[in-house]
Amino acid sequence: MPTALLGTGQMGDGIARTLLSRGHALTVWNRTPARSLPLADAGARVAATIPEAVSGADVVLSIVSDDLAVAAVVEGREGLLASMGRQAIHISMSTISVSLARKLRAAHVSVDQAYLSAPVFGRPAAAASGQLLVVVAGAEDQIARARPVLDAIGRAVVVIGRSPEQANALKLAGNFLIGSIIEALGEAIALARRHDIAPAAFLETLNGGLFKSPVYETYGGLIVNERYSPAGFPVPLGLKDMRLVLQAADAAGVPMPLASLVHDHLLAAIGRGKADLDWSAVAQLIAEDAGFR
Amino acid sequence: MPTALLGTGQMGDGIARTLLSRGHALTVWNRTPARSLPLADAGARVAATIPEAVSGADVVLSIVSDDLAVAAVVEGREGLLASMGRQAIHISMSTISVSLARKLRAAHVSVDQAYLSAPVFGRPAAAASGQLLVVVAGAEDQIARARPVLDAIGRAVVVIGRSPEQANALKLAGNFLIGSIIEALGEAIALARRHDIAPAAFLETLNGGLFKSPVYETYGGLIVNERYSPAGFPVPLGLKDMRLVLQAADAAGVPMPLASLVHDHLLAAIGRGKADLDWSAVAQLIAEDAGFR
Amino acid sequence: MPTALLGTGQMGDGIARTLLSRGHALTVWNRTPARSLPLADAGARVAATIPEAVSGADVVLSIVSDDLAVAAVVEGREGLLASMGRQAIHISMSTISVSLARKLRAAHVSVDQAYLSAPVFGRPAAAASGQLLVVVAGAEDQIARARPVLDAIGRAVVVIGRSPEQANALKLAGNFLIGSIIEALGEAIALARRHDIAPAAFLETLNGGLFKSPVYETYGGLIVNERYSPAGFPVPLGLKDMRLVLQAADAAGVPMPLASLVHDHLLAAIGRGKADLDWSAVAQLIAEDAGFR
Amino acid sequence: MPTALLGTGQMGDGIARTLLSRGHALTVWNRTPARSLPLADAGARVAATIPEAVSGADVVLSIVSDDLAVAAVVEGREGLLASMGRQAIHISMSTISVSLARKLRAAHVSVDQAYLSAPVFGRPAAAASGQLLVVVAGAEDQIARARPVLDAIGRAVVVIGRSPEQANALKLAGNFLIGSIIEALGEAIALARRHDIAPAAFLETLNGGLFKSPVYETYGGLIVNERYSPAGFPVPLGLKDMRLVLQAADAAGVPMPLASLVHDHLLAAIGRGKADLDWSAVAQLIAEDAGFR
Repeated sequence: MPTALLGTGQMGDGIARTLLSRGHALTVWNRTPARSLPLADAGARVAATIPEAVSGADVVLSIVSDDLAVAAVVEGREGLLASMGRQAIHISMSTISVSLARKLRAAHVSVDQAYLSAPVFGRPAAAASGQLLVVVAGAEDQIARARPVLDAIGRAVVVIGRSPEQANALKLAGNFLIGSIIEALGEAIALARRHDIAPAAFLETLNGGLFKSPVYETYGGLIVNERYSPAGFPVPLGLKDMRLVLQAADAAGVPMPLASLVHDHLLAAIGRGKADLDWSAVAQLIAEDAGFR
Repeated sequence: MPTALLGTGQMGDGIARTLLSRGHALTVWNRTPARSLPLADAGARVAATIPEAVSGADVVLSIVSDDLAVAAVVEGREGLLASMGRQAIHISMSTISVSLARKLRAAHVSVDQAYLSAPVFGRPAAAASGQLLVVVAGAEDQIARARPVLDAIGRAVVVIGRSPEQANALKLAGNFLIGSIIEALGEAIALARRHDIAPAAFLETLNGGLFKSPVYETYGGLIVNERYSPAGFPVPLGLKDMRLVLQAADAAGVPMPLASLVHDHLLAAIGRGKADLDWSAVAQLIAEDAGFR
Repeated sequence: MPTALLGTGQMGDGIARTLLSRGHALTVWNRTPARSLPLADAGARVAATIPEAVSGADVVLSIVSDDLAVAAVVEGREGLLASMGRQAIHISMSTISVSLARKLRAAHVSVDQAYLSAPVFGRPAAAASGQLLVVVAGAEDQIARARPVLDAIGRAVVVIGRSPEQANALKLAGNFLIGSIIEALGEAIALARRHDIAPAAFLETLNGGLFKSPVYETYGGLIVNERYSPAGFPVPLGLKDMRLVLQAADAAGVPMPLASLVHDHLLAAIGRGKADLDWSAVAQLIAEDAGFR
Repeated sequence: MPTALLGTGQMGDGIARTLLSRGHALTVWNRTPARSLPLADAGARVAATIPEAVSGADVVLSIVSDDLAVAAVVEGREGLLASMGRQAIHISMSTISVSLARKLRAAHVSVDQAYLSAPVFGRPAAAASGQLLVVVAGAEDQIARARPVLDAIGRAVVVIGRSPEQANALKLAGNFLIGSIIEALGEAIALARRHDIAPAAFLETLNGGLFKSPVYETYGGLIVNERYSPAGFPVPLGLKDMRLVLQAADAAGVPMPLASLVHDHLLAAIGRGKADLDWSAVAQLIAEDAGFR
């Protein structure tokens, strides 16, 4: 199944390598061409333009940074709407807004193309080792057609509904849960420290015996060790996601005060000079508010 | 080691049965005597008064409902301060305030008795099957002396510090983390429902692959199935704990806006007629705010 | 100075009457033409289309419901960009987003037209009696040219800056302050009621002697008398404004947790069936959370 | 009417001077005796002990810093319960908790004394010039007996109910409203500054034409001019009051999320080194979160 992948940043690069290693023929494209070149050695064909990349492709994966970047890939003279073949399927894997997903589906359908949302859970290392969780939504027949590619991306594929934006909503809700864990651990650990409980002992006691969650382990570890740099997922990206959560919530009529709290703390993190840190540095901001330097 | 246990409610009953099954001689007492009688069949000696229960005991465990109930057990003419032997150790397992734990230690020390805080994590079923997590804090030599009893209560004992109130702070922080999970799942699931994602599929997708936490499983299950009654842990108890969290945070100079949010939602749950439901019914309140009936 | 006014809803109607009574020649237009007809009796020329309305006008006032309505008036084949004369000034009085104001200025400038933002403070009765406060921002020479019309609209004109969107930011901040008063009074009055203090006595005591503010008087009166219907400013309009506040704040990097709180309460008001009430009904929602029916 | 006044801090000193200037015979006492001496020149009798101060007094006013200080004045061998005459009335003017007011009434009644709560609104200058607002609650006949003294304290007396704690609840609610104004202005002014609107122009535009409130004027002025020192009402006192608000709200079943927000910001102000500033410095903290230095 001829496949193209647009966007070879950290996540896209890992996904490309997994697909190649699993025997898929792949053409890649990136806005900054130099970032795609290393994939040539891994067996990818590197295209200079989007039309070149998607010519003849049955499935076009895209994974770029945000709504604007997706729109830039889709619209315009060299965009997917103008260059992708009829019946070809655009699978958007980026974390984008629910409203953009709705628009993308309508736009593709209007030119007789297909569209699926398939955001992924996992970090770059998981992408490169085929361990991502893929959550897909869209028309059943299109998912069936895309299945060979979807199955090859990660360790599991979950079909969550027939409207593409449902997958985006689930992805945003998932990132919100992670953000809420950062906030909760930040507050709990500040309280523990003020009672002279070592953060590492605190985390081990609760996550060892009770919560047992790899998410608590990962983010708790970052907070306990104050390892906010280098940033695996920097504050501005976390802020972007919480903004998308709040937009979706507002449009759907769902008050999410905890999402507002996490959003406001990420905004304050930028205001207080922490834009380069990992978004778990919200815990550092909470610690400062509790009087720790 | 002669041991007494004061308070044979759901948790105390389970702990008593575990201790007896593990070969410990145990005298039990309860404010409402009838609730202790079934333990006689399991091998416990049932005392009619606190002085009778603690006479000759090296270790006195107490597990009652709140600060007032603990104070009632400790103070007064028949209280522990007046009736427990010299060098005997009072181990308070109730979820009480940090400030009361400080006062209890001082009071016991002033009459040449010993005091440890050892709150537990786990529900009644875990108590009865010896699966509780015991978190203890206090003087090292006293913990060493009490060790045989502590070890027999649950599946593990964690020593968290030398000041008893540290164990209470950790317990409160742990319950706060659970409350924050309820709030987060409540908001996330309301958002998912508004996008026509089935709550059960939402939970399975995220907790199956990503969070993998038994706490998410337990509370997510209650929320997904709207099984708020019968209440495993009713709203007023959750509220009591969040109040203790906020008191400890305020005294320690730690702003905890998420704890305030959970507290306010529990208070509103009572205002909106949900006092008899499980504290996970905060999710029902959130769903109502999002327009679900 | 030939003047056109687009939008003859409650506010536009009142402004039109004031301008006419102060001797200004005025052409009016409304999307639903019937709503403009009564103004003919007051001396206005009623136009059937925007191009007809603005033909020959030096100043074009617009006051419509939201961003979409303003965009509809400006763009398209019959919009202001296509129909207004060169050098003519579009003065937008609607409560719109900061970002739309930026775009409007750029769009008008690109076709050699002028643009000012001049939102107003006051209710319909104040509009009809010439008692509005007009806050204007934009290029100084354009304000100078528009001055005769601006001065005739209300009781005072405040120039707040040289970039049109500054006036919109101020208007949004002002509405936020009103929203925060509703929230604060709602909470305070619920607390007072729970202590058997009559709301009217509460308000009179504090606003009579201490706050002395007409805004407290107006909104406090609505809350004290639970007069949420008919709605002077319905919940969805308040929500729209708080959404614009939060968008501006987010774009400017300003965490506004109180604005989030008011926004979430307005969203919950809709979820709980209060969409038809005045936005001060947030106080009713707070009262329900406090256990009042 | 023989009158005693306990507590000659800034507020007590001003009240004493007003009473003396209005012809009342007054005996004063202060825990630190030196602070009472200047009042001798103004005509007060200065007592060395509480029993000496209240001997023969029909009315005993107390105005001290907090719950603990009031309790210290009332209890103990030299306290009011032991030393005040039968039928004498203790009028507590301090900002204390609702729960303490309840206890004080019961305690005084149990020894056949009378008790009224009469907190005041106004700053020290208003106390010295007889411009305070006095809010009183308690038994009607006791208020009638105390009337000559109450009337002489300030510019007006408002009777708010028959249970003393009602006056304390109203006082706390009033201080909460002021705290909410600080929060609201802090956020609004940060938003305005980010749009290059001068804070002074912002305040004048809104408070001049719309809000017209002396409270906005006072606190807005402090914020606009960043005049947080010397502190008229330091952060820790504001925090104490918000704590009392939240305690009363919690006990009465009233969720007050805005009060929680103000409380948390005051706590964070202390954590971030602003304990010596006026409580309006919450606006400085908000500005920092928005990226201002």
